[in-house]
Amino acid sequence: MEELIYTQAQQDFLRALAAALPSERVRLGRESLQPYECDGLSVLCELPLCVVLPQDREEVQTILRLCQRFQVAVVPRGAGTGLSGGARPVAGAVLLSLARMNRVLSIDPENRTARVQPGVRNLAISEAARPHGFYYAPDPSSQIACSIGGNVAENSGGVHCLKYGLTVHNVLALEVLTADGEILHLGGLAPDLPGYDLLALFIGSEGLLGIVVEVTVRLLPVPENTIVLLAAFASVCTAADAVSAIIAAGVIPAGLEMMDRLAIQAAEDFVHAGYPRDAAAILLCELDGGEAELGQRVEQVEGILRDQGADSIRIARDPDTRALLWKGRKAAFPAVGRMAPDYYCMDGTIPRCRLAEVLEQIEKWSAEYGLAVANVFHAGDGNLHPLILYDANLPGQIAAAESFGQRILALCVEVGGSITGEHGVGVEKLDSMCVQFSAAELETMHRIKAAFDPDGRLNPGKAVPTLHRCAELGAMHVHAGALPFPELERF
Amino acid sequence: MEELIYTQAQQDFLRALAAALPSERVRLGRESLQPYECDGLSVLCELPLCVVLPQDREEVQTILRLCQRFQVAVVPRGAGTGLSGGARPVAGAVLLSLARMNRVLSIDPENRTARVQPGVRNLAISEAARPHGFYYAPDPSSQIACSIGGNVAENSGGVHCLKYGLTVHNVLALEVLTADGEILHLGGLAPDLPGYDLLALFIGSEGLLGIVVEVTVRLLPVPENTIVLLAAFASVCTAADAVSAIIAAGVIPAGLEMMDRLAIQAAEDFVHAGYPRDAAAILLCELDGGEAELGQRVEQVEGILRDQGADSIRIARDPDTRALLWKGRKAAFPAVGRMAPDYYCMDGTIPRCRLAEVLEQIEKWSAEYGLAVANVFHAGDGNLHPLILYDANLPGQIAAAESFGQRILALCVEVGGSITGEHGVGVEKLDSMCVQFSAAELETMHRIKAAFDPDGRLNPGKAVPTLHRCAELGAMHVHAGALPFPELERF
Repeated sequence: MEELIYTQAQQDFLRALAAALPSERVRLGRESLQPYECDGLSVLCELPLCVVLPQDREEVQTILRLCQRFQVAVVPRGAGTGLSGGARPVAGAVLLSLARMNRVLSIDPENRTARVQPGVRNLAISEAARPHGFYYAPDPSSQIACSIGGNVAENSGGVHCLKYGLTVHNVLALEVLTADGEILHLGGLAPDLPGYDLLALFIGSEGLLGIVVEVTVRLLPVPENTIVLLAAFASVCTAADAVSAIIAAGVIPAGLEMMDRLAIQAAEDFVHAGYPRDAAAILLCELDGGEAELGQRVEQVEGILRDQGADSIRIARDPDTRALLWKGRKAAFPAVGRMAPDYYCMDGTIPRCRLAEVLEQIEKWSAEYGLAVANVFHAGDGNLHPLILYDANLPGQIAAAESFGQRILALCVEVGGSITGEHGVGVEKLDSMCVQFSAAELETMHRIKAAFDPDGRLNPGKAVPTLHRCAELGAMHVHAGALPFPELERF
Repeated sequence: MEELIYTQAQQDFLRALAAALPSERVRLGRESLQPYECDGLSVLCELPLCVVLPQDREEVQTILRLCQRFQVAVVPRGAGTGLSGGARPVAGAVLLSLARMNRVLSIDPENRTARVQPGVRNLAISEAARPHGFYYAPDPSSQIACSIGGNVAENSGGVHCLKYGLTVHNVLALEVLTADGEILHLGGLAPDLPGYDLLALFIGSEGLLGIVVEVTVRLLPVPENTIVLLAAFASVCTAADAVSAIIAAGVIPAGLEMMDRLAIQAAEDFVHAGYPRDAAAILLCELDGGEAELGQRVEQVEGILRDQGADSIRIARDPDTRALLWKGRKAAFPAVGRMAPDYYCMDGTIPRCRLAEVLEQIEKWSAEYGLAVANVFHAGDGNLHPLILYDANLPGQIAAAESFGQRILALCVEVGGSITGEHGVGVEKLDSMCVQFSAAELETMHRIKAAFDPDGRLNPGKAVPTLHRCAELGAMHVHAGALPFPELERF
């Protein structure tokens, strides 16, 4: 295996690092670095300069101060499950893994909070809180593996975010270190702290503003009862209208998910959840709460689904049936993955009331490109996940899938939505950021970055594109809703 | 009346302004300026250079560009009801009133949103939405008069914010102008936009980062039913414990307010709401929702209140009785104002579970200073409003009231809370910001400010103190919870 070659400056830095930390904290050499060369976006991987695995805040500070002294860039990494390349290594930069800072520090039932280190897995918080009757609400699909620090970086969502909010609505306070190792306390237990809302600014900043070393989250009481309704529809549009009707009636389900025919069949073949194979679309609607109100809500939602033309409705009250119905939804991505050699997973959001027309347009483009699309998504909050199926070995299919994907994202912005719902920008969506934001807005973001990290050493090249890059792409910025929908031909 | 005197540069600026705008947009001369010399914090007033009253975004742009060209500072003003001096004029600066930009632009029942100009009164949004069955939830006491632009600047709360969130949770998008007149679109209809969360950063920034020219808010369906419970307690501490018990049981009331003996008696003398005059404390608990769930909730809360030792409980189901019970609470400030020549209205927050001990400490200090305190507050979210009664004409009482107030705020920070819940920092709380934040945190805020307004011309001298000012006060920063509670003597 060929040797890695370091410059003199890099050698000096690595020597200083080795002197400052216990030896098992630093990983060097191709074999040790390779497990870190990608995250969940497994293309265009890269080896970092080295991997460091600090065990506490002081070690993170030591690393950041050395990186400042030697002007070395730093890429933070949680569990590496992110789908947009946010934790992808940058050549010559330290990969800072927070994986060993994985302790639950305290559970406070009286204040309903948990204080944890950034490497704690999302699900581990709920496991620790469960004996007290509490849980942590945001539940990304990767919750068994993903870390709360990564959730903070990406402002992660999940099925239950419709009712309980995103990470930003469930994190109360952060202890972070700036690029030069300075400690900042953001947020707190009291509502509405004075000064600028640096906590909200930091959440979703994809590791560009600082390193999270402690997270305080809000815990919620485990719901008394949960019921899942499965409704089948003869068209995607009637299912989309039913989603709007449920929300318009003032019901806020704990989860409201939609799958189209291709996704239903893929999931059914894979896990046999008992989905109606002949339906054009299904809705999964989870309701939770106390006995009396839940009974009333289920009746109400059932009525709405019937009024909206549902062909059949199943109501799952027992835990096993509920779990089976969710199993199909949760397995939808790998299930679709069995239908074609490759798929391109999109992640965009749109205002809920535009669902039907956007899905229709995607169907038209699908025919035009000759590429099948399976739709699986958080319908309740308008977060689409079209999966474009293609075969990378067939000439032109990669380019076609990418062009199709870009058009979908531009359409999301056009109708007043966004280019990413919950997967982040990372490196994958950099170009789409030029569509989403004006030059003035991107410039403001670069100045915010400089306020925290003047040397630009934290996660360089991620999340916010340079104006130069946008200029090279051409002037693509579309202000939400500024242009009528039919004018989409230019994308 | 003596003439105002302008420098040559000011004369040039005023001439340019007059040439660029219709004449009725610019006000000059002592008599025209005096109505603007203060806001709700009516001390240390100041005349501005001039007052401008633009009617649309283009006029605001014209003003900001001229201010940039002539390097003139700008103080934005909504309705001028703020209590911390955020809209107080600065000598030599333009006072930019958004009062004439007061149109509701659209109500969108399908997306449940309203698009309004910044000068629209808070209550006017609910009035416009009501025919569609919707309302705007955040309800500061001044909602008849205060403007949505001012609410955005202060991240205003209100009685119903316990359940429905602060302004930041109910504003979806802003159109703002930067100090140099550049348009930025912050937020949008889709959840979780990519890039830094500039919307949350902007909300509560007290006019330091830009000028709001359009606001899109979320509307909520008017609740089906509302019930108010009034519970009387023999001690403030048992009432505080009852607050914790209600929240711990998983109930989120629409409002949960507490008043102590002095506040009860003042309100009762003033508006005859039927409060129990002999109680040491009362709780007002509003519950809303559908028929079935509401019945269940009322029973549950009644049970908790009894278990926690409530001496009496009244349940108001009809609109008139509900309104009467709230009338006492809403009139509490002016009612207390009748009991002493002057009062100092504090506004701090604490974690809910520290309520009882903080109230006990305030009582001790009250005896020590010989100054009576009436407590009226948003108990559910730990937002205290101790009103310190004094007589400015008695020697030493102003100083004593201020010292007492500072100790209360320092105590709020010490137990993990903050120096302001909903009234903002403005000019009033600048010194307390030195207690709340570390030098590194304040420095970060100054860099954020520079990212939006590099010349520091927007609302100068407000909200974030200079490090120099904090240094002169002495090193007062207390990290929340870092020090044990009894060590408060130094304040």
